[in-house]
Amino acid sequence: MTDVAALDKADPLAAKRDAFSIPDGIIYLDGNSLGCLPRAVATRLQEVVAREWGESLIRGWNDHHWIDMPARVGDRIGRLIGAQPGSVVAADTTSVNLVKVLSAGLDMRAERKVILSDTGNFPADLYMAQGLIRALGRSHELKLVEPEEVEAAIDDTVAVLMLTEVDYRTGRRHDMAALTEKAHAAGAIAQWDLAHSAGALPVDLAAARADFAIGCTYKYLNAGPGAPAFLYVRPDHLPNVEPFLSGWMGHAAPFDFDLDYRPAPGTERMTVGTPPILGLTALDAALDVWDGVSMEDVRAKSMALGDLFIKEVEERCSDYGLSLASPRKAEARGSQVSFRCPDGYAVMQALIGEGVIGDFRSPDIMRFGFTPLYLRYQDVVDAVAILECILRTELWREPRYQTRAKVT
Amino acid sequence: MTDVAALDKADPLAAKRDAFSIPDGIIYLDGNSLGCLPRAVATRLQEVVAREWGESLIRGWNDHHWIDMPARVGDRIGRLIGAQPGSVVAADTTSVNLVKVLSAGLDMRAERKVILSDTGNFPADLYMAQGLIRALGRSHELKLVEPEEVEAAIDDTVAVLMLTEVDYRTGRRHDMAALTEKAHAAGAIAQWDLAHSAGALPVDLAAARADFAIGCTYKYLNAGPGAPAFLYVRPDHLPNVEPFLSGWMGHAAPFDFDLDYRPAPGTERMTVGTPPILGLTALDAALDVWDGVSMEDVRAKSMALGDLFIKEVEERCSDYGLSLASPRKAEARGSQVSFRCPDGYAVMQALIGEGVIGDFRSPDIMRFGFTPLYLRYQDVVDAVAILECILRTELWREPRYQTRAKVT
Repeated sequence: MTDVAALDKADPLAAKRDAFSIPDGIIYLDGNSLGCLPRAVATRLQEVVAREWGESLIRGWNDHHWIDMPARVGDRIGRLIGAQPGSVVAADTTSVNLVKVLSAGLDMRAERKVILSDTGNFPADLYMAQGLIRALGRSHELKLVEPEEVEAAIDDTVAVLMLTEVDYRTGRRHDMAALTEKAHAAGAIAQWDLAHSAGALPVDLAAARADFAIGCTYKYLNAGPGAPAFLYVRPDHLPNVEPFLSGWMGHAAPFDFDLDYRPAPGTERMTVGTPPILGLTALDAALDVWDGVSMEDVRAKSMALGDLFIKEVEERCSDYGLSLASPRKAEARGSQVSFRCPDGYAVMQALIGEGVIGDFRSPDIMRFGFTPLYLRYQDVVDAVAILECILRTELWREPRYQTRAKVT
Repeated sequence: MTDVAALDKADPLAAKRDAFSIPDGIIYLDGNSLGCLPRAVATRLQEVVAREWGESLIRGWNDHHWIDMPARVGDRIGRLIGAQPGSVVAADTTSVNLVKVLSAGLDMRAERKVILSDTGNFPADLYMAQGLIRALGRSHELKLVEPEEVEAAIDDTVAVLMLTEVDYRTGRRHDMAALTEKAHAAGAIAQWDLAHSAGALPVDLAAARADFAIGCTYKYLNAGPGAPAFLYVRPDHLPNVEPFLSGWMGHAAPFDFDLDYRPAPGTERMTVGTPPILGLTALDAALDVWDGVSMEDVRAKSMALGDLFIKEVEERCSDYGLSLASPRKAEARGSQVSFRCPDGYAVMQALIGEGVIGDFRSPDIMRFGFTPLYLRYQDVVDAVAILECILRTELWREPRYQTRAKVT
C-alpha cells in the first residue's frame, strides 16, 4: 500500500494548492480541460475593472500598459515553454493562432503541398487546416496517419508537420525534439500545438528548434474558460513571416492609421485585433502561481500521480472492463491518464455526481488529468476508491447518469 | 443661450447615467473609443469567476450555459441592430470576423474580383482585406475610392462592397440602405462594419437587406477594453456560407470529435475557438443597460448633443483655427463630432489633462464622442468652456502636452 500521506508531506509543490480556490468535497481531475481558479484572479480582475477601466477609461491603454499585454503576458508563458524572450504573444484563440502559423509555414514552403498530421491530433486543429486548404484553392493536402506512423511519413513532400505534442484522448506524447529534427532534415516546417503541454510538462521550444507553436491557457495554465491563447514564432523566422491575418495590432505603426499594412518588427505582427484586456488580466494573474515553480518538479509529481492512479485503478477496478488507453510508461505520457470503459459516459457522470470530476471523450474514453499544483496524492487514492464503489454498486446505471449533456 | 438644465431635465435617458461608474471630475467624450464601465459588470464578473468558474469548474459549460453565450449574447446585440433572431453571434475580434464574412462574400461571388471600399474605412478593415487577398493568391483587388465616390463606383465588377457605416475620423455616415440596394442591383454583396453604429444609432440590418455585418462592443456597447466582437449573416445566406475559419465551435457536433469539419446549421458556424467566457460575461452584463431603451431616443439625444457641441465650439472657439471635420447636418453623422485643429494633438492632451477626455486621430483631428446613455447636455457646455480656456491661455503649449503616447 502506497504511503500517500508521506508523499504529500514530502511534496515540494504542496504549498501551491493554497493559491487555488478548490470547492469543498470535489476531487478535480479535469484540469486538463479547465484549470481551477487561482485566488489571485478575482482580486486582480476586480481591480482592473473598477480602477483601470472604470477610472482611467481610454487612458488605460497607455497608463496601465494594456497595449503591451499580448507581448508581456506572452513572455511569461514563454518562460514555461522554453521560448526566447519576445517570441511569444498571447492573443486570440488556439484555432485562430493555428491558421496564422500554418499559413506562414505554407508560405515558407510554397513549393510543397502536404500538411502532415495524425489522427490523434485535436480535431479542431484538423478542421482549421481543412478550412485553410479550401481558402487557398484546394491545392494542398492534409495527410493524416496514425500517431505511431508520423515519423516514417515525414518526407520531402511535407511542407508543414502539424502536430499536437500530447494526445487529448490518451495523453500519448510525441517526441517533439526528434520529430522536429526529422522534419527539418526533410526540409519541412514543424508546428506544435502545446494545448496539453504548457504548464503540464517541461517544453523547450528553443532547444527543439520548433518553428512555430500555439497553445491554450485555460487548461494547465488556469486562466479561465475561453482564456486567450498563445503563439510562438522561432525568432529567426520572423522576417519571413508576413501574416495573412494582418490586423492593426500587428501593424508597425497602428496609430498612424496608414491605409496600407506593414508588419511590426517583432512577434507582435502575429496579433490582429484589439487585445482582450479582461481575459489577459485573468491570464496574467493566473501566471503568478508559476513564479518560482520548477517544471522539473511539476513533471516528477505529474508522472508520480499518473503512475499511482494507474496502479490503484488496475488493483481495485480490474473486474469491471476498464483498460488503460494511455501509455503505461510515464515518460511517454503528458499529464493525464485515460481508461477505456464500455459504459464510460455514464460511469463518468456517476463519478462527477459523487464529486470526482474527470471527463469523457467519444467513443469510450474516461479522461483524468493530473495537475501537480493543486492535486494531492491522497486525492488520487480517494478518487479511485469512489470509482471502485461506483463500478461495484453499478450506480452508473441510474437514469440520471445516462443523459448526454451538450458539452461532454 | 441654450437652457441646458431644461434639456437635461426633460431627457428621457437621464436616469441611465446612474447605471454607469463615471469618475469624478471627468467629462468623458471618448465613449466612441472605449465606453464607460456599467456598474453591473463588476458584480457579474465577480459572480461568474467565483461561483461559476471557481465552483462549477468544467461543469459550467453545461450548468451555466457558457456554451450558448455566443448565440445568446449575439441575439441581445441583434435587437439593437435590427437583426433577425439567431443571425448574430458574439465572438473573436472585429478584424477576425471581417475576414470570416469577407471570405464568405468572395466565395458567393467567385466570378468577380473587386472588393470596393473607401479611404474613410477604418484602416484595420483594409489591412485584413489586404491579407486575405494575399492569401487567396492575389487575384482580387481592393479598390479604394473617396467616401463620396462610393455610390458611383458600384458596378458589376464588384464582388463585395465593404464599408464602415460611420467614419471613425469624421463621423460621416453612409446611407446603408441605399448603398446596399445599389450593391444588390449590381449583383454585389454588401458587408457593413458597425463599430461606430451599434449602440450609437438605430440600425436595421434586416430592412436594409445587408448581407453581412460585423462590429465591436467596447465602444457604444460599453463591454470593456478588447471585448468580444460580433458578426451578422443574413439568414438566407447561411446555407451558402462555408466558413474558412472552420473551428470546432462552428462544427455541427463539436463533441463528437469527428476528424472532418461539418458546419453547424445556424450562425454558430461562424464561431471558431472556445468562447471567451469572462469577456462575454462583461458584455452580457453591459447589455443590461439597454433593456427598455429606445434607439430612437438615443438617436434624438445623440444628434442634439452633437448639434449643441458644434454650436458652442463655433461660437466660443472660432478664433483659434478649429474647423468642423464632421457633417454639419446631424442626420449625416454618427454619434461623434470632429474638429480639425493644427495643434490638435497637444490641445487634446491639454483637454485630457483638464478632465475632458476625447481623442486624436492623425493628422489633425480631435474627436469627441457623444454617448446618450451617460452624457448630459451640461457636460457638453462645460467641455467647450474648458476647450475655450485651453485655447485662449495656450495651455496646450506646455511641454507635457507635446509628447506622443504609444496609443493615441
